[in-house]
Amino acid sequence: MEKEKAVIILSGGMDSTTLLYDIIEQGYEVFPLCFNYGQKHIKELEYANATCNKVNIPLKLIDLSILNDVAPSALTRKEIDIPEGHYEEDNMKATVVPNRNMVMLSIASAYAISIGATKLFYGAHAGDHVIYPDCRKEFIDAMKKSIWLCDWGNLTLEAPYVNIDKGDIAIKGKELKVDYSKTWTCYKGKEKACGKCGACQERLEAFDKAKIKDPIEYMEE
Amino acid sequence: MEKEKAVIILSGGMDSTTLLYDIIEQGYEVFPLCFNYGQKHIKELEYANATCNKVNIPLKLIDLSILNDVAPSALTRKEIDIPEGHYEEDNMKATVVPNRNMVMLSIASAYAISIGATKLFYGAHAGDHVIYPDCRKEFIDAMKKSIWLCDWGNLTLEAPYVNIDKGDIAIKGKELKVDYSKTWTCYKGKEKACGKCGACQERLEAFDKAKIKDPIEYMEE
Repeated sequence: MEKEKAVIILSGGMDSTTLLYDIIEQGYEVFPLCFNYGQKHIKELEYANATCNKVNIPLKLIDLSILNDVAPSALTRKEIDIPEGHYEEDNMKATVVPNRNMVMLSIASAYAISIGATKLFYGAHAGDHVIYPDCRKEFIDAMKKSIWLCDWGNLTLEAPYVNIDKGDIAIKGKELKVDYSKTWTCYKGKEKACGKCGACQERLEAFDKAKIKDPIEYMEE
Repeated sequence: MEKEKAVIILSGGMDSTTLLYDIIEQGYEVFPLCFNYGQKHIKELEYANATCNKVNIPLKLIDLSILNDVAPSALTRKEIDIPEGHYEEDNMKATVVPNRNMVMLSIASAYAISIGATKLFYGAHAGDHVIYPDCRKEFIDAMKKSIWLCDWGNLTLEAPYVNIDKGDIAIKGKELKVDYSKTWTCYKGKEKACGKCGACQERLEAFDKAKIKDPIEYMEE
């Protein structure tokens, strides 16, 4: 029997990497997509590629550097500093790329439709909601409807981690034996993760919750 | 008093051009966007540009040629023929660029958010619904919700022509004194419009309904 095709948006981070292992386990024929939207560093993309090599599935890279022209943010523009510290309303707002998720979901949907995939998987999770309006469940639900309608109900958006936090994702990844050495979370593109930015702090808390050691290296104090 | 900012997706066709005149008349500060998604011909873009020159507002062109790689269709791939005749389920399906409208709406939203616009105008109309799932009112309503949620309710998608047909749009354009000589509708990029493809036929019917003469030239039999 032919396998059901599924597209997944892969960022190179923990969440989408765990979801990739998850849907391979579920038996889909998986088509991973990765977006280059002019991030300051392309470490995430290198890690996404390393994961795909590991699971032996080709990664399709989509150039979205136009987003940098259309809607600049701290993640893409060199002259804006990335704030340190935990995610908080004020200091992290500069990291929001306006509407990035809708842009990625719409292009991923176009790709899914064109290859006849029935599912589009997306690793948004509960912890993302505070400062990113387009990670909230209500937003995902509205996009689910838009995507369902955009091609006569042939494609379903699935965001199975939307109600769980990063710690729960790490617990799931532990079961699935995800190779987290091939994931990158830090907002800064140095050789080692900084351990200080909001993204690093959330990652470290997730590994704590799952009671596993984070295999990547962090910078010394 | 500062004017409210509005972004509009301009295609170079009759509908979005009429809407442009409409929202200028309504008093918005207007930011027109045009997408190059690897169409076989760029006549539409030239006409969008001519209209913007006429109303003296700069046009922002966004390169979406990646769509051609992600999801090819008859409108973008040279090896696929554009069907002739009226819009019908079967022969015109090859003209559907999968999910093009969601992609354009999501990028236009990113731009609108980044410049502080409160409205995104979109010229979809009732006649489009039969073969393009992403022109239907249900789809527009789902996108309206997605766009409202993607940035904390600061941006509203407006598709004021969604319930009227192209003839009614032409009637509106007659009142607004739209210069239709600067619009292009034909799917083929020849010097003159073919008069035969579904797009030309619908245009000619619209001018008939509005009782105005179409100022563009058509090919002889």
